[in-house]
Amino acid sequence: MYSIDLNCDCGESFGNYKIGMDSEVADFVTSANIACGFHASDPLVMMKTVRMCKEKGVAVGAHPGFPDLVGFGRRKMEVKADELKAMIIYQVGALKAFAEAEGLKLQHVKPHGAMYNMAARDINMAIPICEGIAEVDKELIILGLSGSCFAEAAERTGLMFVSEVFADRAYEDDGSLRARSLPGAVITDEAEAIKRVIKMIKEHSVTAYSGKEVHVEPGSVCLHGDNEKALLFAKKIREALTSEGIEVKAMR
Amino acid sequence: MYSIDLNCDCGESFGNYKIGMDSEVADFVTSANIACGFHASDPLVMMKTVRMCKEKGVAVGAHPGFPDLVGFGRRKMEVKADELKAMIIYQVGALKAFAEAEGLKLQHVKPHGAMYNMAARDINMAIPICEGIAEVDKELIILGLSGSCFAEAAERTGLMFVSEVFADRAYEDDGSLRARSLPGAVITDEAEAIKRVIKMIKEHSVTAYSGKEVHVEPGSVCLHGDNEKALLFAKKIREALTSEGIEVKAMR
Amino acid sequence: MYSIDLNCDCGESFGNYKIGMDSEVADFVTSANIACGFHASDPLVMMKTVRMCKEKGVAVGAHPGFPDLVGFGRRKMEVKADELKAMIIYQVGALKAFAEAEGLKLQHVKPHGAMYNMAARDINMAIPICEGIAEVDKELIILGLSGSCFAEAAERTGLMFVSEVFADRAYEDDGSLRARSLPGAVITDEAEAIKRVIKMIKEHSVTAYSGKEVHVEPGSVCLHGDNEKALLFAKKIREALTSEGIEVKAMR
Amino acid sequence: MYSIDLNCDCGESFGNYKIGMDSEVADFVTSANIACGFHASDPLVMMKTVRMCKEKGVAVGAHPGFPDLVGFGRRKMEVKADELKAMIIYQVGALKAFAEAEGLKLQHVKPHGAMYNMAARDINMAIPICEGIAEVDKELIILGLSGSCFAEAAERTGLMFVSEVFADRAYEDDGSLRARSLPGAVITDEAEAIKRVIKMIKEHSVTAYSGKEVHVEPGSVCLHGDNEKALLFAKKIREALTSEGIEVKAMR
Repeated sequence: MYSIDLNCDCGESFGNYKIGMDSEVADFVTSANIACGFHASDPLVMMKTVRMCKEKGVAVGAHPGFPDLVGFGRRKMEVKADELKAMIIYQVGALKAFAEAEGLKLQHVKPHGAMYNMAARDINMAIPICEGIAEVDKELIILGLSGSCFAEAAERTGLMFVSEVFADRAYEDDGSLRARSLPGAVITDEAEAIKRVIKMIKEHSVTAYSGKEVHVEPGSVCLHGDNEKALLFAKKIREALTSEGIEVKAMR
Repeated sequence: MYSIDLNCDCGESFGNYKIGMDSEVADFVTSANIACGFHASDPLVMMKTVRMCKEKGVAVGAHPGFPDLVGFGRRKMEVKADELKAMIIYQVGALKAFAEAEGLKLQHVKPHGAMYNMAARDINMAIPICEGIAEVDKELIILGLSGSCFAEAAERTGLMFVSEVFADRAYEDDGSLRARSLPGAVITDEAEAIKRVIKMIKEHSVTAYSGKEVHVEPGSVCLHGDNEKALLFAKKIREALTSEGIEVKAMR
Repeated sequence: MYSIDLNCDCGESFGNYKIGMDSEVADFVTSANIACGFHASDPLVMMKTVRMCKEKGVAVGAHPGFPDLVGFGRRKMEVKADELKAMIIYQVGALKAFAEAEGLKLQHVKPHGAMYNMAARDINMAIPICEGIAEVDKELIILGLSGSCFAEAAERTGLMFVSEVFADRAYEDDGSLRARSLPGAVITDEAEAIKRVIKMIKEHSVTAYSGKEVHVEPGSVCLHGDNEKALLFAKKIREALTSEGIEVKAMR
Repeated sequence: MYSIDLNCDCGESFGNYKIGMDSEVADFVTSANIACGFHASDPLVMMKTVRMCKEKGVAVGAHPGFPDLVGFGRRKMEVKADELKAMIIYQVGALKAFAEAEGLKLQHVKPHGAMYNMAARDINMAIPICEGIAEVDKELIILGLSGSCFAEAAERTGLMFVSEVFADRAYEDDGSLRARSLPGAVITDEAEAIKRVIKMIKEHSVTAYSGKEVHVEPGSVCLHGDNEKALLFAKKIREALTSEGIEVKAMR
């Protein structure tokens, strides 16, 4: 039987500032990537988000990012390996404490934004990230881009790697995401997007932009909860997966 | 046989900014209160400080403070109970991760600066602090001012409380520290200060400013590592305690 | 002929986080209090907000607050007089530069949140705030609570003081706002609120909660742009003032 | 008659953290680059540093950097042109306010750290920096690396450019600084360093690492005040310049 995890970024509010429809999207996803206070969130938001996930039965993961609140962790920063490893331990440790305070086990870690994108292509960043995670808890899963440096880094540091795929993005022949700046990078047809995901799960294959079939091993599908449209899509894809006989469950 | 812990704030450097003679004072103390990034420190400093403590055999504790880097956590802030609890879980969780990454068990938590001073007198702050600590790990020790609200809060939340005394400070009849703004608040004579500490440990008593004998139950003595003089005093008091037959060892 | 200014907080977004319907409310108010990056906003938001005010013909003012982004400047902080003065010069100077970059003259300064509330009752805070403003530019107007310490501090430092009134708040016999924690603190009837404002402007008098008539000298009315309802009220009050023959114009 | 400015970074302390021997080095330099709170400093430090410069008769300049306190502004960040321009206006505006509060005219702006290094080689960064400066005050001088993109950006935005040279650094044939990672990048012989500076001032020429003579037009020499050795060198070079008949005076 087929199964898949659905993940979504959560807990990105900050003090008086609200972002995301966390509680709503939590009805459709099985794993939450919870911001850790560096690119978004604050301790109180983290505490409340973990509690909300507990109530909804969603597995919790840490979503560490660069220390860049004003840039939402989306700006590239040049950080040294030991700085990077330390900022991972710090953020993952903080979120792990909130999870344990609620009697939950932290399931996974998914780096955020620029850190995710840079490390996906740079093994010298993926390694300290995975080292940091492994030093906090060897049983944590690293959730990262299919076919990225996270796979190799996970292997070298003894972590379990789960690769995520994107329903709404085109792929290149090497399995990487087609850059947003290029034509055809985004799949706007929802039915088409869902069909692609089902094929990725059942056949481990996606049709690249070039038309070539590319191998993927999806462990999770990345969804969004920023707006009404994203929410509706989350509902639709969850229903489609279920009716296709694909079990939707957390990656652990 | 008598025994006592000696504690000192450590890891207060931040990025390019250096404070404290951590490595030197670590030769004399048995417990380190390590800053957690809110009032001082950063992830890399935390990682290095925990490692240094491991090498020197000093027990590690978390030293959480208010989110006020520019004020070094010394400015009073009005925070709500759930905010306070969340900032404790966050900071203690982060430091616990660094400790565990080095194979160490986090020993204690000592709130810093204005948070320490406000909560010592306000049970409505001491309680959420202790709740936060207990939710991270019930075996953590709360280290606080002798005769303060931390004692009651620890009892209510099931934490072990260790009370600390100050070698260089005068006491009032109710066991509180004499305010720095009043004459005679600071004991400047080092020999006198050491004599007082030894009496506190052996006789559980200190002569208050008024001349009255006040009951204390010292589990730890708070020392400093900011400057050469503080360092010398740490050395002296450690030697004096040893020659008095008082074993100097971590509070656990 | 009667005239009045209508002021509103603007530019409180921060990076990826959006707050407020600035562009909409700017159609109804005559003065904008623009956040300066300490409790809200960032340099880019400040630049864009000043430009928007220029386009809409709204006078720009600085809205400095405590350095507490996560608390939105609403948490009391204990700051020393010289720290407070320096944080005023810093924030007002920054916003003044954005105003001048657009060829505008900065009109006024209105402290934000906890800083506003604390200084309204504490002359030892109101004075350094006014000193800081005066050192940046003696011609800046300080906009503050009617009957507060800002009036005296303005006089002592040679600044022009404009007092603001609140349409939706009850007053006490001494001219202070009735605390939100007390019954009857908020005027929920919009027609009533507007009637009160018109009386304050025309008769310099407001009926306090006790029923007593209290003297006020409104130079500005504080409005909000956080939500649709606030926006509608801004529109209504502006129309009512106009139809009452009260000219609505910036305080300068 | 020859003349030259000597500049030094100042005001890099932050809250409880002290860096630099500002007051001492101010006896030898003629222009101070004062940090603006993004990579170092805080409002109170800025206020005190400007006052100290006034007392010592040192011309004041703004030293804006990336918003990266923990990285001291030395980490490369990817920022958009409008973000960069806004962060310049903000920081320069803040420091200008402190200068004017003391009755001083802000003389110049020198970008700091990674911002300086990146913009020196990237006209798309140098332009928004210079635009931001020009919008604050067209009479401000931009102080930057000799032969860098700042020269062109200054010309395009109508700013006056003053180029700075380094006494202790080797140069390449194209007039750029020899990278620190390469052998021979740093001139350790102080007498040699001083001789090179004098030649740069009098002959507008420096012997590059390759042996080739390279044209330079030094308007200022960059000195340091971080430690005793740097301080002594500042004293020595000032004395040497004077005895060579070179007038040491602020760049304006």
